[in-house]
Amino acid sequence: MALVVEKFGGTSVAGPERIRVVADHVARRRSAGDAVVLVVSAMGSETDELLRMASDVASAPPGRELDMLITGGERKACALMAMAINDLGVPAASFTGSQAGFHTDSSHTAAKIVEITPKRVTEALADGLVPVVGGSQGVSVSGDVTFFGRGGSDTTAVALAHALGADQCEIFTDVPGVFSADPRVVAQARRMDAVSFDELLEMTASGCPKPAMRAVELARTYGVELHVRSAFSWMPGTTVTGAKAMERAVISAVTHNTGEAKMTVSGVADKPGVAARLFRALADSDVNVDMIVQNVSVQGITDISFTVPRSQVEASRAVAEGLVAELGVNAVAADDDIARVSLIGAGMQTNPGVAARMFETLADEGINIEMISTSAIRISCVVRAADAERAVAALHRSFELDVAPAQRPIGY
Amino acid sequence: MALVVEKFGGTSVAGPERIRVVADHVARRRSAGDAVVLVVSAMGSETDELLRMASDVASAPPGRELDMLITGGERKACALMAMAINDLGVPAASFTGSQAGFHTDSSHTAAKIVEITPKRVTEALADGLVPVVGGSQGVSVSGDVTFFGRGGSDTTAVALAHALGADQCEIFTDVPGVFSADPRVVAQARRMDAVSFDELLEMTASGCPKPAMRAVELARTYGVELHVRSAFSWMPGTTVTGAKAMERAVISAVTHNTGEAKMTVSGVADKPGVAARLFRALADSDVNVDMIVQNVSVQGITDISFTVPRSQVEASRAVAEGLVAELGVNAVAADDDIARVSLIGAGMQTNPGVAARMFETLADEGINIEMISTSAIRISCVVRAADAERAVAALHRSFELDVAPAQRPIGY
Repeated sequence: MALVVEKFGGTSVAGPERIRVVADHVARRRSAGDAVVLVVSAMGSETDELLRMASDVASAPPGRELDMLITGGERKACALMAMAINDLGVPAASFTGSQAGFHTDSSHTAAKIVEITPKRVTEALADGLVPVVGGSQGVSVSGDVTFFGRGGSDTTAVALAHALGADQCEIFTDVPGVFSADPRVVAQARRMDAVSFDELLEMTASGCPKPAMRAVELARTYGVELHVRSAFSWMPGTTVTGAKAMERAVISAVTHNTGEAKMTVSGVADKPGVAARLFRALADSDVNVDMIVQNVSVQGITDISFTVPRSQVEASRAVAEGLVAELGVNAVAADDDIARVSLIGAGMQTNPGVAARMFETLADEGINIEMISTSAIRISCVVRAADAERAVAALHRSFELDVAPAQRPIGY
Repeated sequence: MALVVEKFGGTSVAGPERIRVVADHVARRRSAGDAVVLVVSAMGSETDELLRMASDVASAPPGRELDMLITGGERKACALMAMAINDLGVPAASFTGSQAGFHTDSSHTAAKIVEITPKRVTEALADGLVPVVGGSQGVSVSGDVTFFGRGGSDTTAVALAHALGADQCEIFTDVPGVFSADPRVVAQARRMDAVSFDELLEMTASGCPKPAMRAVELARTYGVELHVRSAFSWMPGTTVTGAKAMERAVISAVTHNTGEAKMTVSGVADKPGVAARLFRALADSDVNVDMIVQNVSVQGITDISFTVPRSQVEASRAVAEGLVAELGVNAVAADDDIARVSLIGAGMQTNPGVAARMFETLADEGINIEMISTSAIRISCVVRAADAERAVAALHRSFELDVAPAQRPIGY
């Protein structure tokens, strides 16, 4: 008998029909002899609707109240799911994050897990019940309800799988797995059978929307094997592990992200401490800076460009403009008409041909590269937003990602 | 500075617009120097919608899961209300029933309060906040969420007013107060300025829908003065106290209830213990029997009739049919085409003319009386459902309830 934690996302439980389908799956899994713990997100677009209501009643809703409001979505879904499972003759009980033992800090709307004491969940399992846990929520030291943020149900599932010593953590979603590129952009995009934590981390950091990056980080830290799969086809999806699959080729996937903007701070002195001062100030304002490029300096003066989420453009501009006098900045510019296209894979650094081929492919398409950054398993290029989808398709073709990994040429 | 507990019902907080109106009222009340604790119900028809979803996913949802689901409605409303109040510059914080210290038994869907420890509410008040408490909910000894049942927010408000030693408990609703008859049926129905706990109890027990009877019972037990008033006109409504107002005439109101059915168990032996056996069995099946009439026996055989809520007709029938052999019953009949019309007032027993005039009034209208029951402050008659509204209008006219109490004739 295996113990498995299964997480179901919003579209998987969007209405009564879907809830009954998932309940049926759980009943079958139980009949097959497995013990199941469910983690559920809020139904469909419920979180958006709750946020809209909050903005209808208040211009600046306090975080504590937002968390009280929003976590109601997951709570509703888990109560309905527990009812539906019970109705099939399989005993089930719903638990809020607090009841499931998720203790968090007090950072409302983005709470971090401090400790998990899943006593009621283990007792329910011992009693033969299916525990159904509300995702993305916990309780703070002061007894207030806390929310982990959007996508936090994946985090709940991974953390619970670790705390319970589960055999597997399955992330059921509305896509069949992790793809070699966004299938809406590249028709030949290939579902990957397996991917490593590191690669998936780079992919989620550079535009792959599911699973949530924070959950992948947690899974990587604790070695919780994930299985990202479809709640609609119920077919096997993509397993995510620390191990390298023998079949894995150099390049795994192409991702793209159109949610960022490029900030350029011009005319700063090229001397020690300047960049540190700028990025410390940005970090203190909770701006998530991603790529950073500092131009070669001319006569001791240089430009620094970096990418930030579009929602943080104004905050970044305020920080940079606040440093005008101190750093001698002469202009702060924001450009949100950009996209980042990234190539993900193992052994990039030992295959310098990869970067070269990436740049050649983009050049052949007449696509200009505005910024470049690399990691051990990723190369990212910033291009005009209008060129992004063409770039993704060209790279997917060029690296033959539609071919099964074992059949791809080795090296470039 | 007064401390007041204000409860707002579902229609009072039906949407963002209404929530902002109530928040504005709270801000004004605070400016006037009062300390306010709010209790809110679920928005508009949310409870019905949640119940509909439950019936969409399960044929027999467990009570524990229903409570987890339904209490989310009040929780959502109180989070939104706290946001809206904060947005007006008045600090506010929402509390679930559990956070507000409502400890209950484990009778899911109809939990009873065992103890109230409103530590977080008193702390919030001391910190100058407006506590906003989710109505009709608490937590059981096992840490499960419990629901008091429909109309339970009134109970929360009264219990909290008592526990906090509040100066007043105001029940804001969608009507301007308590009326001498249902204004939809009697155009001349009069809003009562004051009514006693006992009279209001009889009224709610015989068809007056607001406030909820259980809350009136609790207010009477603890001497919590109520003020039932409109959340739309904000005008003074009806105060409910233990005291007798000097102006009060003999008859206060006419009520009617069309939600009951008449059960008749025929052919039972007229001997000691028979009625006890029947009504014990009904009580054990949680059937709420109201009026009971046992006919004069003929040759040691009699019929027993009683009224039950229409929703409990099948349960009552099953109980009665289960006793056929034991009690020698020869027929069990249900008639749901009835209504109960009641006259409420003080000193009925010392004014026998009241009953006589009631029966005469109905006779003049050609309305047949099928059952009669009386208490110290109420006379109820069961009539055909089709006659109910005509009976109410005739009684309201006959007892001149449209005239202010001080101007009414004394005695009949």
